[in-house]
Amino acid sequence: MTTPSHRLRELKLTLPSVVRPVGSYVPAMRTGSWALVSGQIPIRDGKIEFTGKVGRDLTLERGIEAARLCGLNALAAAADAAGGIDCIRRIVRLAVFVNSAPGFTDQPKVANGASDLMAEIFGEAGRHVRAAVGAAELPLNAAVEVELMAEVA
Amino acid sequence: MTTPSHRLRELKLTLPSVVRPVGSYVPAMRTGSWALVSGQIPIRDGKIEFTGKVGRDLTLERGIEAARLCGLNALAAAADAAGGIDCIRRIVRLAVFVNSAPGFTDQPKVANGASDLMAEIFGEAGRHVRAAVGAAELPLNAAVEVELMAEVA
Amino acid sequence: MTTPSHRLRELKLTLPSVVRPVGSYVPAMRTGSWALVSGQIPIRDGKIEFTGKVGRDLTLERGIEAARLCGLNALAAAADAAGGIDCIRRIVRLAVFVNSAPGFTDQPKVANGASDLMAEIFGEAGRHVRAAVGAAELPLNAAVEVELMAEVA
Repeated sequence: MTTPSHRLRELKLTLPSVVRPVGSYVPAMRTGSWALVSGQIPIRDGKIEFTGKVGRDLTLERGIEAARLCGLNALAAAADAAGGIDCIRRIVRLAVFVNSAPGFTDQPKVANGASDLMAEIFGEAGRHVRAAVGAAELPLNAAVEVELMAEVA
Repeated sequence: MTTPSHRLRELKLTLPSVVRPVGSYVPAMRTGSWALVSGQIPIRDGKIEFTGKVGRDLTLERGIEAARLCGLNALAAAADAAGGIDCIRRIVRLAVFVNSAPGFTDQPKVANGASDLMAEIFGEAGRHVRAAVGAAELPLNAAVEVELMAEVA
Repeated sequence: MTTPSHRLRELKLTLPSVVRPVGSYVPAMRTGSWALVSGQIPIRDGKIEFTGKVGRDLTLERGIEAARLCGLNALAAAADAAGGIDCIRRIVRLAVFVNSAPGFTDQPKVANGASDLMAEIFGEAGRHVRAAVGAAELPLNAAVEVELMAEVA
């Protein structure tokens, strides 16, 4: 049986450093059998990489990439709280907020950028419930924000 | 003592089939003592029935109907994950996102469409916490999206 | 060791009465080891105090004050469900929805109004995960809405 850390290597992915919170909160925490992760934005190496409204400032494709990066940041934070990515038993829930241009209604396709990443890394244990919602604005003009909840060992 | 399935019959309601996800996620899942349900939109028989912005494209009354349909779809998904509607012990939380026209601030009245349904079916056990929020856009131009969390047997 | 109720007195803060729900739901409830609180808006003494869009109708500073008031209302509701504020062991999660003017992207600074209050009252136990999101509209034209989740004794 393959482990999430093994799958990461197969996918040539590296968990980034946990993104430093942009306010008075923590990136992730354990409560009961779960790890909860703060809303993650598409920051890479300390710089925001995807800004603006999907459907106007970014294409759908770029929005999907943004969601994937948010998902990767969320996993990094969850792994940190859980004691390593292999301590994550199951992804439970994603909430995906998409900075949406007027008339843009493909939030589910954008959100798949994060959801598909969970499936690639965790297989069946990556299947989760999800809400995808169009936000009017997001922190630092991020294109996407992703919250995550996981069961941990 | 009446059961939720009995109440459904009294109300002449039928739980619909679980709405097929519009992305890479599952309609509902159990975690610990809870069932979590993905954001449900007002789909009936595979077709979205209420689209557009409440307060512009839909009246408040239609928005309330849309929320009720989302609530019914959410219960169908929760029941499926729980092993039947009578395995739902208590409704815990709804999050209701309302596709809102500029200046529309009656999100709570819209959300009551879903909340009142929970009270009709579950009585005291239908009392829940709730967030009602105005969304800029929603998947497939849905008028309302409802997330649900319930305690299960 | 100082208690939350002691800290409230030191800060010359009083928990307000629980704000009466503006719909068919309850202000807060216990489930498992947690108290969940409904989305709270900046109501004081039964009247909404901060309305409109932050960045247009309100300054950032007023938005922060609004978030702090939402946070105080959320604690009142959580304390009521928990059996008193000293029964709250730890703040777990805040979701902060900011009624945002076009182009306003300082949702994290607004949200700090609520987050900092948790730190002042609970110290280390006030550290939480958080989502900060720009809403298109909010109930009663509220400037901010805050959901809260806490571990309880």
